[in-house]
Amino acid sequence: MYDQDNIIALATPSGAGAIAVIRVSGPNSIKIVDSYFKSITGKKLNEQKSHTIHLGHIIANDKALDKVLVSIFKNPNSYTGENVVEISCHGSPYIQQQLIQLFLRKGCRMASAGEFTLRAFLNGKMDLSQAEAVADLIASDSEASHEIAMQQMRGGFSNEIKELREELLNFASLIELELDFSEEDVEFANREQFNQLLSKISEVLKKLIDSFALGNVIKNGIPVAIVGEPNVGKSTLLNALLNEERAIVSDIAGTTRDTVEDQISINGINFRFIDTAGIRETTDAVEKIGIERTFDKVEKARLIIYLFDGSNNDTSQYLAIKHKYPNKELLPICNKVDMLGDLEINSIKQQLPETLFLSAKMGTGISNLEQKLLSLVDSGKLSSGETIVTNSRHYDSLLKALEEIQKVKEGLDIGLSSDLMAIDIRQALYHLGEITGNVTTDDLLGNIFSNFCIGK
Amino acid sequence: MYDQDNIIALATPSGAGAIAVIRVSGPNSIKIVDSYFKSITGKKLNEQKSHTIHLGHIIANDKALDKVLVSIFKNPNSYTGENVVEISCHGSPYIQQQLIQLFLRKGCRMASAGEFTLRAFLNGKMDLSQAEAVADLIASDSEASHEIAMQQMRGGFSNEIKELREELLNFASLIELELDFSEEDVEFANREQFNQLLSKISEVLKKLIDSFALGNVIKNGIPVAIVGEPNVGKSTLLNALLNEERAIVSDIAGTTRDTVEDQISINGINFRFIDTAGIRETTDAVEKIGIERTFDKVEKARLIIYLFDGSNNDTSQYLAIKHKYPNKELLPICNKVDMLGDLEINSIKQQLPETLFLSAKMGTGISNLEQKLLSLVDSGKLSSGETIVTNSRHYDSLLKALEEIQKVKEGLDIGLSSDLMAIDIRQALYHLGEITGNVTTDDLLGNIFSNFCIGK
Repeated sequence: MYDQDNIIALATPSGAGAIAVIRVSGPNSIKIVDSYFKSITGKKLNEQKSHTIHLGHIIANDKALDKVLVSIFKNPNSYTGENVVEISCHGSPYIQQQLIQLFLRKGCRMASAGEFTLRAFLNGKMDLSQAEAVADLIASDSEASHEIAMQQMRGGFSNEIKELREELLNFASLIELELDFSEEDVEFANREQFNQLLSKISEVLKKLIDSFALGNVIKNGIPVAIVGEPNVGKSTLLNALLNEERAIVSDIAGTTRDTVEDQISINGINFRFIDTAGIRETTDAVEKIGIERTFDKVEKARLIIYLFDGSNNDTSQYLAIKHKYPNKELLPICNKVDMLGDLEINSIKQQLPETLFLSAKMGTGISNLEQKLLSLVDSGKLSSGETIVTNSRHYDSLLKALEEIQKVKEGLDIGLSSDLMAIDIRQALYHLGEITGNVTTDDLLGNIFSNFCIGK
Repeated sequence: MYDQDNIIALATPSGAGAIAVIRVSGPNSIKIVDSYFKSITGKKLNEQKSHTIHLGHIIANDKALDKVLVSIFKNPNSYTGENVVEISCHGSPYIQQQLIQLFLRKGCRMASAGEFTLRAFLNGKMDLSQAEAVADLIASDSEASHEIAMQQMRGGFSNEIKELREELLNFASLIELELDFSEEDVEFANREQFNQLLSKISEVLKKLIDSFALGNVIKNGIPVAIVGEPNVGKSTLLNALLNEERAIVSDIAGTTRDTVEDQISINGINFRFIDTAGIRETTDAVEKIGIERTFDKVEKARLIIYLFDGSNNDTSQYLAIKHKYPNKELLPICNKVDMLGDLEINSIKQQLPETLFLSAKMGTGISNLEQKLLSLVDSGKLSSGETIVTNSRHYDSLLKALEEIQKVKEGLDIGLSSDLMAIDIRQALYHLGEITGNVTTDDLLGNIFSNFCIGK
């Protein structure tokens, strides 16, 4: 089905650490490592059971390259379904490189991105949507994205899709059988039952398609533009939100993730904050360019926070934004509430009743803001454990499948001939099969796995 | 001997990769992981053999945190000598953090730097010099530094030191026995044999002490200052040297080491190039500061390359450097030889016969320069496999031990009383024991292991 050669890659992040893991997969992987591995027990890897670990040295040109632990996994009981060896070596980049070079010279080739998981898919260890979940899981950086990836990796909605597709396939066969007897005008497929199945499939597909709005948000985060004059406290607000988060997720040495400065996770949903310059009427050419840039950024946001200082009562900027972006959520927030008197607060409440008051510096009102942000996301489905589609490829296939199913349904309603209906059914089957990998092309697989990291 | 609690740390580099490995060590490590691990076979880790690998899920609050491979190593057959569990999880920093946090809440504590290796030492899995070699191995970035670290990890000279210390200890006991019979004037220790042993120890120590000059060079690289006027081609020369190296060590995706821009490895020896401004007589105040800085840098170099353009016959700068640094190796190099006629070349050869001619741009003469640089390092010992001391702590202890041994020898020569001699012998034993870890203090161990990375 594919070139069964032996592939190798570093599976752990590059750079120096205590240990690094090099992964080798292929029919001869154990044999290849065996020829350069000297176990302290003197036994060969080939004689050992699957899922066992062996201490010894990797020897090349009579020199010990490293003292390593070698784990062996025998076909088919491995990640890829092939023979797999994992070499746990000392975490020096020099050693990693030397070991990989040694095995490249001895019959392995460098794995391409996602090639281990591609082989797992090709060997039937997982379906395509599960394989995609592996990449999502590695990329997951919040509770919600992690949970959905785990769900998808364990089968998720692809099992349901597989079953529905199976039922549809049965009807397709019956209807195609009718074609063979077309002159006799028989009906093998019960039209009533078929109609029920199509309704059921439509319903499931619609629900999954609807879930993508939330799924996309969970996977990519919600872009939030913060608009406001200089000195209204934009960065103080960001820090206040970040501190709330830090208090929950304490830093652990060695695991600190690469901080995306302006990304904040609230109840597992990521909000990506986009800082902008202010917006106001101007005739100055240079300032106009700055404002254009602000508009570009706001354009990409789903939600706009309009941050202002309560001592300034000018609402013209707020109104300008509201006018320009009537379809985006706009949230007026009054900062430095601790500096305001009741009179000023009341005046703001009259002008902009939806205003949220807080003091970023004192940390008051921050949790109100978080609740408000969360309320703008329909995250109820998340906690109820409902299936959520996060992958835009799946979303596309679901949309196309639904379209075809509806064509079939219409055909059924108007009594379309079996031969024409069969074509639409085949199309629906195709798009459903694309999700689970029952239908694949080299292009499709290439697109999916090139987004993986090397070593997975 | 130490707090036998359960420690945990990320063992692989931080950041995202295909997989990450979390290491847990301590008497309850297997039990702790067992309570949150659900194997796909349904068996508990406790029932499994040492050195086996198990696929399953880490479950917390009824949710699967990750699908993982768990490797177990049972006391005493593990790196630390305790029960050890290695969890190979998906390489998402989020998952790493969640898993570590779970186990921190459930009876583990964060390991401090080098604590796994410290436990290995305390449990007699390796001596102190071997433990130090682990850190050297991880830091090794050249063939030579890697080879010496491997040698030291496999026992290296510490076995020899241990044996000599044992023999010395025997004599110490005999001499101390004489003290108990001091009124009877007996000699249990054969003075002739003792003298021979002292000579042998001195000889070994001297050889090891001498090897440190090369060892230090191998571990830290050789600092080389390049002095020359602007535009003589300093950076072109550096690039030419780097290209030579790149041709040998091809880049492998995922293993590329952090490049130290100006570090070049020739036959496994690292040369660190320090770029400087030129040096010439001046009265200008600002220029004088620049020249001061150049002198500071040259001060730190072991070797000075004086790079000049053959069309400029002014040797005054060369002579100024030679005058200021009579004890440093000074290498005059004439660049752009391709632009010179025979007349000019001969004139330079007459003025500075030791000049090396090359064209950095054309790449000619580069390997001559490399050979010249190598010849300035006494790297013969390296290829002959002789023991080389690279650790300045060992060097200090060796110097102190030698000093004490020589005192003992002198004492023996002048017939010093046993009680006074015993004091010097104890001191020598102490310093020899410091190297292998027969003698340790908390301070010493703290100093050594705090330089390790966390997770090792």
